[in-house]
Amino acid sequence: MSRIGSPKQAEEAAELTTTPTAGARPDEVRQHNRAVLLRRLHTGGPCTRAALAAEMGLNRSTIKALVDELVKDGLVVERVPAQRSGAGRPSLLVLPQPQAAVTLAVDIRVEQVAMALIGLGGEILNRCSWSLRPTSRNPREVFTKIVDNSAVLIEEAGVDVVAVGASAPGVVRRADGMVREAPNLHWTEVPLGDWLSRALDGRRVEVGNDAELSALAEHLRGAARGATDAVFVGADVGVGGGVISGGMPLRGSGGYVGELGHMVVRPDGHECYCGSRGCWETEVGERALSRALGLPEDSPRGVVVAELHALAQQPDEVLQRLGEFGEWLAVGLCNVVNLLCPQLVVLGDLFTALPRTLIDHVGKLVTERSLVSRAMGGTKLVTSSLGADGKLLGAAELAFEQVLASR
Amino acid sequence: MSRIGSPKQAEEAAELTTTPTAGARPDEVRQHNRAVLLRRLHTGGPCTRAALAAEMGLNRSTIKALVDELVKDGLVVERVPAQRSGAGRPSLLVLPQPQAAVTLAVDIRVEQVAMALIGLGGEILNRCSWSLRPTSRNPREVFTKIVDNSAVLIEEAGVDVVAVGASAPGVVRRADGMVREAPNLHWTEVPLGDWLSRALDGRRVEVGNDAELSALAEHLRGAARGATDAVFVGADVGVGGGVISGGMPLRGSGGYVGELGHMVVRPDGHECYCGSRGCWETEVGERALSRALGLPEDSPRGVVVAELHALAQQPDEVLQRLGEFGEWLAVGLCNVVNLLCPQLVVLGDLFTALPRTLIDHVGKLVTERSLVSRAMGGTKLVTSSLGADGKLLGAAELAFEQVLASR
Repeated sequence: MSRIGSPKQAEEAAELTTTPTAGARPDEVRQHNRAVLLRRLHTGGPCTRAALAAEMGLNRSTIKALVDELVKDGLVVERVPAQRSGAGRPSLLVLPQPQAAVTLAVDIRVEQVAMALIGLGGEILNRCSWSLRPTSRNPREVFTKIVDNSAVLIEEAGVDVVAVGASAPGVVRRADGMVREAPNLHWTEVPLGDWLSRALDGRRVEVGNDAELSALAEHLRGAARGATDAVFVGADVGVGGGVISGGMPLRGSGGYVGELGHMVVRPDGHECYCGSRGCWETEVGERALSRALGLPEDSPRGVVVAELHALAQQPDEVLQRLGEFGEWLAVGLCNVVNLLCPQLVVLGDLFTALPRTLIDHVGKLVTERSLVSRAMGGTKLVTSSLGADGKLLGAAELAFEQVLASR
Repeated sequence: MSRIGSPKQAEEAAELTTTPTAGARPDEVRQHNRAVLLRRLHTGGPCTRAALAAEMGLNRSTIKALVDELVKDGLVVERVPAQRSGAGRPSLLVLPQPQAAVTLAVDIRVEQVAMALIGLGGEILNRCSWSLRPTSRNPREVFTKIVDNSAVLIEEAGVDVVAVGASAPGVVRRADGMVREAPNLHWTEVPLGDWLSRALDGRRVEVGNDAELSALAEHLRGAARGATDAVFVGADVGVGGGVISGGMPLRGSGGYVGELGHMVVRPDGHECYCGSRGCWETEVGERALSRALGLPEDSPRGVVVAELHALAQQPDEVLQRLGEFGEWLAVGLCNVVNLLCPQLVVLGDLFTALPRTLIDHVGKLVTERSLVSRAMGGTKLVTSSLGADGKLLGAAELAFEQVLASR
């Protein structure tokens, strides 16, 4: 239990912007404000001291003391802004120092693994990736290569890694990073979190579902920035979704996140490995898109994207060729909107290559058919602004969550 | 901004079980603990002082002081428990005093309106209801009758009403109680909250979606008690659902709640007024159930229920007659589980009359087809334990939320 100290400390304690543990000691209060400030700089980017004071509702001398401390600890640097506004002494610009806290992010997909060292503020400091083929998807093999490459990345960059975040395309138990089922990889019960933690000298490792991490990244740094309620939906080999509700990632019982891709949209549709038929994934995933375009189901990603870009040049043909595909996309999006009432839906991965004509058409169908969308004055449909790096940035955030709280 | 006071007050402040506003004054801390205690007694029912102390992590003298205060204010009473356990002085049983805070609850359905005075602790003190026919669903007419009946209820019971909660079967804007769209009632943009508040002497009025309020009630007092993640789904004329996520009702952007009944489960199914086709509501709502049973679509509720009870006596025939109906129920439930990962799903309203054989069959289908359910070790499918009173109790909770915080 906490105690409350001297009047001076009490005055500091009173100057609080958000809620730490109740009955917090002044040093806890300072620690809390420091963490809020660091997090703000990490996700919001460089900012003047004056703007930070206004934003956090703290007086300038308190901000100065906190920033001085962060500078002393090497977590941020201060610079005179290039462009001065108005007369008088310019407010110093505070910038996060990327090297001060570096996380290792791992993005395991069905067809490739990408890794990056990501510094405070979200800067990618070093990266690598390699393709996965059906013959090289064995969990042990993937894990070994991740460990080998992490050593190379770290040595090349000459930095230390404070924590690790990993993204996996499947159902993940967050508590221990157990990948329960990643069907497109044919993984079952892979203790990825444990393996990585042991191989990386006991560093803290967090593993999350890939679409959940995309949603997190788009919310913090991408197309859903500032939204309190947003849904990310992305198509890769599978289709996955992540939900931000009330400004926080939505998780269900036991920390599991939903599998939007396995919502049934077409009960007489294609059989799915999950045990259902006509899942969103079987009707709007990569194979479905290839079929809709008249390409072989197993066409390489590049061919599918090239075909979509060519089609986008002929807007009149878009609905003729992709109208039915758009129908299944709309059915799923209507369901998502009717169930979760998001302000906006971010389309990611392969969906970012869909012709704008199609996205607009689907958006119109959603508004016409969803009474929730109508009540809310429509639902914005946007494409991801982080592109392929979304899952890496999201995985890094899982790692940063722990790190920032204790810096 | 708050200030922190004397060491004695600080010691009181340190004894906190949950988080009030940071930097809270000791009187705010006491007020907070008092509200937590009152809320505990309101939702959890009678409890000994000793058990309250253990549960809230406060020492017995603090609990005694808080309870004494509540007794003095007439909010609770204390009694020697009927059954004494062990030797020594018995711990007094603390009971909420229903008359100390009475709310008016209104449950507007498509076919009837029910009203009740509900006291602290959830006891129904007085009630009335009347049927709605297509000719008597005019919003002004319904509103007038609600106001007239509230006067009668209040006079009969000889109590005062501190706040009002209402349930409506449609899309409700929580901020001002505007019923945006209640299609089965043919209501659009009905300012129910404003009307009620003005007619009831400016008393605070909260209006919520009916299924949201059922979920709230089942979570606080019914079949979902103790669950952190649960979904309520009920069939009436329409089908509605409410979600408890992380122990709290899930709301989307603007405070709107999802419309689970308008998730499309059968794209080639029946046309729905909402603009879609084959919504869950058109495939498993009351009309669909009547069709499945071979009854006319507009059969009275009593006939449908009687037929279901008769069918339940012949378990071998259940799947033969309701197998396809069960299929659509399972598709929707799979989607709900795959998207929201609840520990359990509570079936309410007309669904409580479904034969157990069918519910078990549907539960089995959900586990077979939902990879999320499998990862979570299965999903419990239970029936509502509050029955027809769920929406009234939920509406009362909306009213109590405000009241309890300030008592």
